[in-house]
Amino acid sequence: MVPPIGISLQYILRRIESQIYHENQSHLAGLSQLSCQKPLSFRLGTKNETGIIDEGSGTITLYLGLDAGGSHCRARLIDENGDILGTGHAGAANTRIGFENSLNTLKAAWNAAIADAGLAHNDIDRIRAGVGIAGYKRAGAAEAFAAAPHPFETIRFASDAVIANLGAHAGKDGATLIVGTGSIGIIRAHGEDKTIGGYGFPVSDEASGAWIGLEAARHAVLAYDGRTEMGPLARNVLDRFGDDPVAIVRWTDRATATDYAGLAPLVVEAAQLADAGAMEIVRTAAIQIDAFVEALIARGASAICLMGGLGPVLRPWLAPTTRDVLVEPRHDALTGALFLAGWTGLPRG
Amino acid sequence: MVPPIGISLQYILRRIESQIYHENQSHLAGLSQLSCQKPLSFRLGTKNETGIIDEGSGTITLYLGLDAGGSHCRARLIDENGDILGTGHAGAANTRIGFENSLNTLKAAWNAAIADAGLAHNDIDRIRAGVGIAGYKRAGAAEAFAAAPHPFETIRFASDAVIANLGAHAGKDGATLIVGTGSIGIIRAHGEDKTIGGYGFPVSDEASGAWIGLEAARHAVLAYDGRTEMGPLARNVLDRFGDDPVAIVRWTDRATATDYAGLAPLVVEAAQLADAGAMEIVRTAAIQIDAFVEALIARGASAICLMGGLGPVLRPWLAPTTRDVLVEPRHDALTGALFLAGWTGLPRG
Repeated sequence: MVPPIGISLQYILRRIESQIYHENQSHLAGLSQLSCQKPLSFRLGTKNETGIIDEGSGTITLYLGLDAGGSHCRARLIDENGDILGTGHAGAANTRIGFENSLNTLKAAWNAAIADAGLAHNDIDRIRAGVGIAGYKRAGAAEAFAAAPHPFETIRFASDAVIANLGAHAGKDGATLIVGTGSIGIIRAHGEDKTIGGYGFPVSDEASGAWIGLEAARHAVLAYDGRTEMGPLARNVLDRFGDDPVAIVRWTDRATATDYAGLAPLVVEAAQLADAGAMEIVRTAAIQIDAFVEALIARGASAICLMGGLGPVLRPWLAPTTRDVLVEPRHDALTGALFLAGWTGLPRG
Repeated sequence: MVPPIGISLQYILRRIESQIYHENQSHLAGLSQLSCQKPLSFRLGTKNETGIIDEGSGTITLYLGLDAGGSHCRARLIDENGDILGTGHAGAANTRIGFENSLNTLKAAWNAAIADAGLAHNDIDRIRAGVGIAGYKRAGAAEAFAAAPHPFETIRFASDAVIANLGAHAGKDGATLIVGTGSIGIIRAHGEDKTIGGYGFPVSDEASGAWIGLEAARHAVLAYDGRTEMGPLARNVLDRFGDDPVAIVRWTDRATATDYAGLAPLVVEAAQLADAGAMEIVRTAAIQIDAFVEALIARGASAICLMGGLGPVLRPWLAPTTRDVLVEPRHDALTGALFLAGWTGLPRG
């Protein structure tokens, strides 16, 4: 996965294309899509004979960001100006798959980005890397990643929530509430990151997809018994399980948070159809999000980004006071990983 | 475990003791504790040469009841008059341990009761057995038990909840709500048993020990975050986990319903100390029990027994309208198993 020693032909071609791109942005129609996506304004650095980077001779630092989520890992390599040199992808790198597997997935993604950029092998130690990883709070994970060997000048690890928050507030102080399969609040104040919730389902992760899915299963079983009204939500959940509550229970023996979250869309749909049971679940989730936001404000947050798959869906149900403090994220989590790496520039586009 | 062929000496001695017991109940002080526990008024039956029981010659039916709970299995053998001939004990026979293991545990308990009674081998086919078993609703369990060979005249299987309800209402129509590790409502109307809830944790079993325990863990994590007040309940739960919410989450990876139910006593204690979080959990549990009782009433129940370890504890928190319909159980589940077996007598004592 390591690119060939020396500057590759691909790299030089890209650099030329990039210069054309920057000099003639209005005449780009004829250029390939690839070059448009990856504008380069990359000054080649040199190393002196001792191998020490000579800043004075034009050597620049490169920044590598990795966003390693529960299902997918993305890598982006940029120069100091924020121009994208290369990107890479790999599968899930969540620590749930084990530290070694997780690290190997990260390596696959970053090697792909380095190869995509056509970087010379001896340019790799000019990279400062930032990695946001799902499950980073798992016991022992932080220590294991810190001790892992890497080829970069520096590497910093954090949770996926931390880089999402860094991206959302362009590397500045701010808070984010992520409501996806799980839920977590994160606040960065005076350069320090603190989290609220997000300990994992079913004890924590209020209002998350997993939480909503469990409530949906509970509701369906109650409706089957005639202990609550059989509306569209209960009907749809029961239909998934052959109208058999025993089948639901068998499923729960092995169901993961992700499995439970798979029922959440049924709740959202049914709530939009004014199904009473679904609306109660969504309203309770909204109250929990309001409480999350209140706790973030109590810790000093004044502007909060609501992110994650369920964020936009639940937004209309939130209290007006909650919606008042919500702001749109400025950049994505991958950009946040670049800020974590130490980049202080402004993302392009 | 099968007693020797023919009437054993022990059996004859007991029979004599029993007759003394019944004839001279006021002069029993000198008899052994054993004979007091097991009064016998058992007329010996005979079989004709074809092996068919000859009712006319004085043969009577014996009744064997088994209460096979999640942690313990009890057996009781009686005659038509309700006099106890023998008792037996064994470990957990819940279907969770697998059908074969479960059946072997049942056999150990019933063989112990038969041996304790000193029954002759050829008297065993005069027994009508009734077995109430935890986890009987598990898929395939009813079919497996029905197909299992047995040495009795008849055998009937049901869930542990069904025999509890039969015992509570002396074999007559009635309803019972059992709130222990799990929760289930059961109603017998016109000789037919129907259940409400009890499908299993975490989807069902509202207000159960497991449900309360999960809520306690959730509350503790919220309090750790400062998202709710740190009262005695949160303090006690966190202390159990070294004040580390991550340790709670690790525990939930493997925690069973029984494990969660282990936290319920902390909730009950804290609620009695007016801890706000604990009171909210107990109040929510009480509302769920009120709803359970409402559903049983809607199905025709007029008198409901509240049983299980958490029943008495939660009773003071129930709505007055709920408490108004609660009655004390008349007999225990083991007696219910004897009714299931077909016995129609009145329990002694």
